[in-house]
Amino acid sequence: MSSVRHEDHRSTGGNRRRGRRAGGEETRRALLTAARAAFAENGYDGATVRDIARRAGVDPAMVRHWFGSKERLFTAAVSLPLEPARLLPGLLDGPRERLGERVLGTFLRTWDEAGGGEFTALVRSVSDREEAGRMLREFLTSTLLEPLLRELRADRTDLRAALCASQLVGLGMIRYVIRLSPLDEADVETVTRTMAPTVQHYLTGDLENR
Amino acid sequence: MSSVRHEDHRSTGGNRRRGRRAGGEETRRALLTAARAAFAENGYDGATVRDIARRAGVDPAMVRHWFGSKERLFTAAVSLPLEPARLLPGLLDGPRERLGERVLGTFLRTWDEAGGGEFTALVRSVSDREEAGRMLREFLTSTLLEPLLRELRADRTDLRAALCASQLVGLGMIRYVIRLSPLDEADVETVTRTMAPTVQHYLTGDLENR
Repeated sequence: MSSVRHEDHRSTGGNRRRGRRAGGEETRRALLTAARAAFAENGYDGATVRDIARRAGVDPAMVRHWFGSKERLFTAAVSLPLEPARLLPGLLDGPRERLGERVLGTFLRTWDEAGGGEFTALVRSVSDREEAGRMLREFLTSTLLEPLLRELRADRTDLRAALCASQLVGLGMIRYVIRLSPLDEADVETVTRTMAPTVQHYLTGDLENR
Repeated sequence: MSSVRHEDHRSTGGNRRRGRRAGGEETRRALLTAARAAFAENGYDGATVRDIARRAGVDPAMVRHWFGSKERLFTAAVSLPLEPARLLPGLLDGPRERLGERVLGTFLRTWDEAGGGEFTALVRSVSDREEAGRMLREFLTSTLLEPLLRELRADRTDLRAALCASQLVGLGMIRYVIRLSPLDEADVETVTRTMAPTVQHYLTGDLENR
């Protein structure tokens, strides 16, 4: 991924100075550790790239070099294989009445490719630690679903985001964690077709009357 | 709860014989431990009251005395505040087109009363251990949703049960674990009204067309 990846600090014979900028894979690991601490303390919105870089003892440019953006650093830090900046255009591109299909298809393909184990790890970290819950909360709302709903000029974006999240997270629980047949092994197209009306309703439907 | 609860085995001065039937609270704890092991090894359906009692070194009648039934022993063993035998009649009693409301209302009232922490504990045990996932899977399907769907003479009971479970478990995740506003604090009636069409559709609707 980078020409500095294999730089070997062990060759300095243990005389590395404290505060010296670590290179390569070491920098990446230091940034992930610092990011987890910063997100845990200040939440997704409160944590800054500058602060994370400072904690890791590296230049803020390293965040861009290794992760590209704060979102991608977060997803790497919590093993979340979802990248809002890359997902949003694809979700918005297409007929509005098929948005539910696109959201479900994207969710399923992303986690299916990750093998499902990442979802279980995420759920465990969320139920173990209050900070992880706050991070996921902010990620789902501030970073992904609310921007999507704002682009759609939807009313009640907070309620719609929470309803949509409830169906997506529940699907992940049933497919990857609890593994309830037939939703655990059904192909992406079948699950999407069956559940799309629910997600579509939560995103664009009339929540008072149906 | 029982006149033998305060029986004190310490008065035997440490000379209790191995295999002697423990009384009171001790029996209850031994049954819970044996139940967790038996459910973990053989699943909900495979574990028998007789085997659980044998592992605990007590008479099978003690299960009825302390827990009333195998279902209630399971719910106590995994801290699941849901008792299918008591829930089913209430879910079936009323207009079929309002079944979604009753299922959601029952789910929310049960877990709200437990304070939500029990749901988090259940989720953690499910994501930590494969056996807990299997137990919850069997509980949701064999014990609660499939009997309900059979009473309704529904088609595709396995798919409907999994779809319904996905929305209920997802709601639990959002309300109690991730705590996403406004679904974390909205009153039971509001949440029920907003989500009932989804649960109703999964239980009784046409899954191919909508």
